[in-house]
Amino acid sequence: MRILGIDPGSNATGYGVVDQSGGKLIHVAHGIIRPPKDVGTADRLAFIHRGLTQLVSEFAPDASAIESIFVAANARSALVLGQARGVALAVLGLTALPVTEISAREVKKAVVGTGSATKSQVQAMVKRLLELEKVPPTDAADALAIAICQAHAGKLASLGVRSGRSRRRPNLSGNFTLRNRT
Amino acid sequence: MRILGIDPGSNATGYGVVDQSGGKLIHVAHGIIRPPKDVGTADRLAFIHRGLTQLVSEFAPDASAIESIFVAANARSALVLGQARGVALAVLGLTALPVTEISAREVKKAVVGTGSATKSQVQAMVKRLLELEKVPPTDAADALAIAICQAHAGKLASLGVRSGRSRRRPNLSGNFTLRNRT
Repeated sequence: MRILGIDPGSNATGYGVVDQSGGKLIHVAHGIIRPPKDVGTADRLAFIHRGLTQLVSEFAPDASAIESIFVAANARSALVLGQARGVALAVLGLTALPVTEISAREVKKAVVGTGSATKSQVQAMVKRLLELEKVPPTDAADALAIAICQAHAGKLASLGVRSGRSRRRPNLSGNFTLRNRT
Repeated sequence: MRILGIDPGSNATGYGVVDQSGGKLIHVAHGIIRPPKDVGTADRLAFIHRGLTQLVSEFAPDASAIESIFVAANARSALVLGQARGVALAVLGLTALPVTEISAREVKKAVVGTGSATKSQVQAMVKRLLELEKVPPTDAADALAIAICQAHAGKLASLGVRSGRSRRRPNLSGNFTLRNRT
């Protein structure tokens, strides 16, 4: 089971690919799609579109997960975030990939153990869980954390702990969620 | 010069195609892309993506125009609107179509003569300007109005009235902008 996690943003769209096999999580890839800054919005969004389409084609994930609606500070920033998120969702829809939306809070709770975890706590736990040599940059770490959260939710679902509907609310208590690094 | 106008929305994305030839506006097509309601967000956005891609392929416009950022009532609706708008912009970027963003106020001013025009005033003026047999539905009328506004701005630019940069602010005083239907 290969999962693509996406943390969409107009300046930086993080992605993380994780394999889940027999309860083990294996890191496959992570990175950040950064559109050029000196082009118009349409070209920037097309850049994100092309990047994500290429990732899906290259890594052939079985499922995907994306951060669910974040209540932005204001309508303007929500619209800008929405644009990048819309492109990511459209790519996932076009490639017929199952999509689960997970809130940032749920991701943090699953990975660090608390919904109020800091960015650096998420980075450190992602590094530890995936046995990475170094801490991934924040946007990519968030995307990996989303994939990890979904991998675990999927595992629980396959064990019958929770019915496997999209948009399920993961409530993880497995071994890696309890290793809170504070 | 053929212009595609888009009024993006997650439930209804209006489009309008207008030819501008020697100062004359000719209606080509208009309609509304309505994604099915019983599918997830990714599938809905993919539906809009496919629909717009097909329109660009079918009508081969020379340029496009889209409503610029609308300050929504709240962050949640801005995010939902942003998602549809992001998909539309990505399609325009992917097809390398020039994009001009025009505010709703500018469109109303150009088409009806006042920035505070009502939906039905826009519909009536679009019908009149394009010599349509009946009033187009609101989302399609808005998209046609955006295309008309851009067609006129483009004409002024080509006459040297205004330098032809994207995101220019149309300030129209041509014959059709003065025929206010109140």
